[in-house]
Amino acid sequence: MDTSTEVGAVARESIKNKVTITEIARQAGVSVPTVSRVVNGRSDVSPQTRARVEDLLRHHGYQRKSNPSGDRAALIDLVFNDLDSPWAVEIIRGVEEVAHASGVGTVVSAIHGASGSARQWMTNLRARASDGVILVTSVLEPRLHDELRRLGVPLVVVDPAGSPSLDMPTVGATNWAGGMAATEHLLGLGHRRIGFIAGPPRLLCSRARLDGYRAALEGADIAVDDALIVPGDFYHSAGFDGCNTLLDLAEPPTALFAASDQMALGAIEALRRRGLRVPEDLSVVGFDDLPEVRWSAPPLTTVRQPLADMGKLATRTVLRLALGEEPASPRIELATELVVRASTAPLV
Amino acid sequence: MDTSTEVGAVARESIKNKVTITEIARQAGVSVPTVSRVVNGRSDVSPQTRARVEDLLRHHGYQRKSNPSGDRAALIDLVFNDLDSPWAVEIIRGVEEVAHASGVGTVVSAIHGASGSARQWMTNLRARASDGVILVTSVLEPRLHDELRRLGVPLVVVDPAGSPSLDMPTVGATNWAGGMAATEHLLGLGHRRIGFIAGPPRLLCSRARLDGYRAALEGADIAVDDALIVPGDFYHSAGFDGCNTLLDLAEPPTALFAASDQMALGAIEALRRRGLRVPEDLSVVGFDDLPEVRWSAPPLTTVRQPLADMGKLATRTVLRLALGEEPASPRIELATELVVRASTAPLV
Repeated sequence: MDTSTEVGAVARESIKNKVTITEIARQAGVSVPTVSRVVNGRSDVSPQTRARVEDLLRHHGYQRKSNPSGDRAALIDLVFNDLDSPWAVEIIRGVEEVAHASGVGTVVSAIHGASGSARQWMTNLRARASDGVILVTSVLEPRLHDELRRLGVPLVVVDPAGSPSLDMPTVGATNWAGGMAATEHLLGLGHRRIGFIAGPPRLLCSRARLDGYRAALEGADIAVDDALIVPGDFYHSAGFDGCNTLLDLAEPPTALFAASDQMALGAIEALRRRGLRVPEDLSVVGFDDLPEVRWSAPPLTTVRQPLADMGKLATRTVLRLALGEEPASPRIELATELVVRASTAPLV
Repeated sequence: MDTSTEVGAVARESIKNKVTITEIARQAGVSVPTVSRVVNGRSDVSPQTRARVEDLLRHHGYQRKSNPSGDRAALIDLVFNDLDSPWAVEIIRGVEEVAHASGVGTVVSAIHGASGSARQWMTNLRARASDGVILVTSVLEPRLHDELRRLGVPLVVVDPAGSPSLDMPTVGATNWAGGMAATEHLLGLGHRRIGFIAGPPRLLCSRARLDGYRAALEGADIAVDDALIVPGDFYHSAGFDGCNTLLDLAEPPTALFAASDQMALGAIEALRRRGLRVPEDLSVVGFDDLPEVRWSAPPLTTVRQPLADMGKLATRTVLRLALGEEPASPRIELATELVVRASTAPLV
């Protein structure tokens, strides 16, 4: 509770003030955590430093204590493009667990990739004086990014798109290693023609999974056949369509690796409709290990990414940032793990 | 935005004050909406009534305008037992959509059915001055219920447990009609021995689905065989176990109706492991229509309940209550609908 109260206080003050503690730190020639300690009235700051920082806080009219919402509990904003996947609930579960235990409320929003909705969200965020933001696979317009920075609201991105700037901490999974493990599993079963159904190319995690697939093939001295790589967007129907495209090839694959569990389930449905059996006629590997794929028919071999743990880590990071502390590392990737179930079998 | 600002202001004031607007209304002999109009400074109140209400507000030291967090945006709390099902994300999606559009933040929590966790949540709720609570299939201890009432924080329950008191608005689906429709569909396909895998008996929705099943059988002059009714908890493994129990009967069913989609998928896995085909060897119907069951193998025949719409309606109701208005109806059930896919077939 103590930590969350501090988080709330510091972040809210940043919002109320035109100057951020980062700027105060720069002008005082000290670190952001030092300014944070002064703002929080902690004793572990030298008298000289405290005096210099407090002069600057006064100079910029920095308000503390008198802050009208100073006794409110802290909030963090967890922002998705869309709340339309069992994937989202795994992230929410991890974020909520860490936030709840810290007395911090988790405000969940969907911005639907629409700039109007994102602007509405930013208006709401300002009004509720949120203490931090976790953005999931989303892209904010540069203008909104700048606004967050100016408000002093820290931001952590889970599974970033594009090339995130270095001052933005990100949390992800070892997607490249996971893509390689999935493909090596199929190679180990004797498969040589392995299809790949890709994720949205704007996301780094999609690109890393594809590169892991390529790396495994190259490691086995198999030339990458671009005809075996089809586009997708992580949703079921892309897996269904992608699988049909692959099966219609003159020389179809004997196995396929889908970059998400939902696309793997879509692919299994395409196979079922053609009267093909999994894994007897074609092996299928997914990516995510959503809880329900233990119950798919057949249970899915997949690459587990620790979604709830990614949510937890993102939350711990944003709470540290809200205290003016530095993140343990600006880029963290949690380990993925191949989980072998019943949807893959040796090539016969 | 205007509505949400009012919601925030009124509900927050109730929290800050020892006296609720309900109590003020009682003492003034007027309705709660009338007190709300006075608090909000609206003009549609007679001068005599306004004077009487304002006297009482002053007498009780009711604080408005001067409220320290008066400029903060409104929040509602959405509380689950556990965030462990794709079912939850459907509810969240509906709640978030209505709240977001009103400038209201949706704080998502899981209380894990543990009283310690529920008390922590209540502490957090007080600290963030939340304007309303939507409780999903949860039971609060009477003490926490009383505390919410005393704080003047309105409560709406989605899929209530036990017999909710009449002063607590609830939102659900037509579970009884849905249970009947599922069973009549199987009867119409010629099935006479129909198994039922039940939900948790503490939930009204579970009991209504079971009663709908019974009513359909009785309507077809088929005696209810209690051996065909097995317990469950809505999760996959209960469907798996329940299906095995039913298949081990001396006279097993030719069709089964599971009270949740997840249990239906668990049942399909039990059948697959025995080498039985769906629907050729056994027909299966679920309940929920989660987005992913379109992609199960085979795609699931199920009873659709409009989970996102239930979330939207609960949100509109709690926002009305936060304004001191009465709910349109204390008990609302949204329609369910049978969706026929590929997991059911005529008895041969």
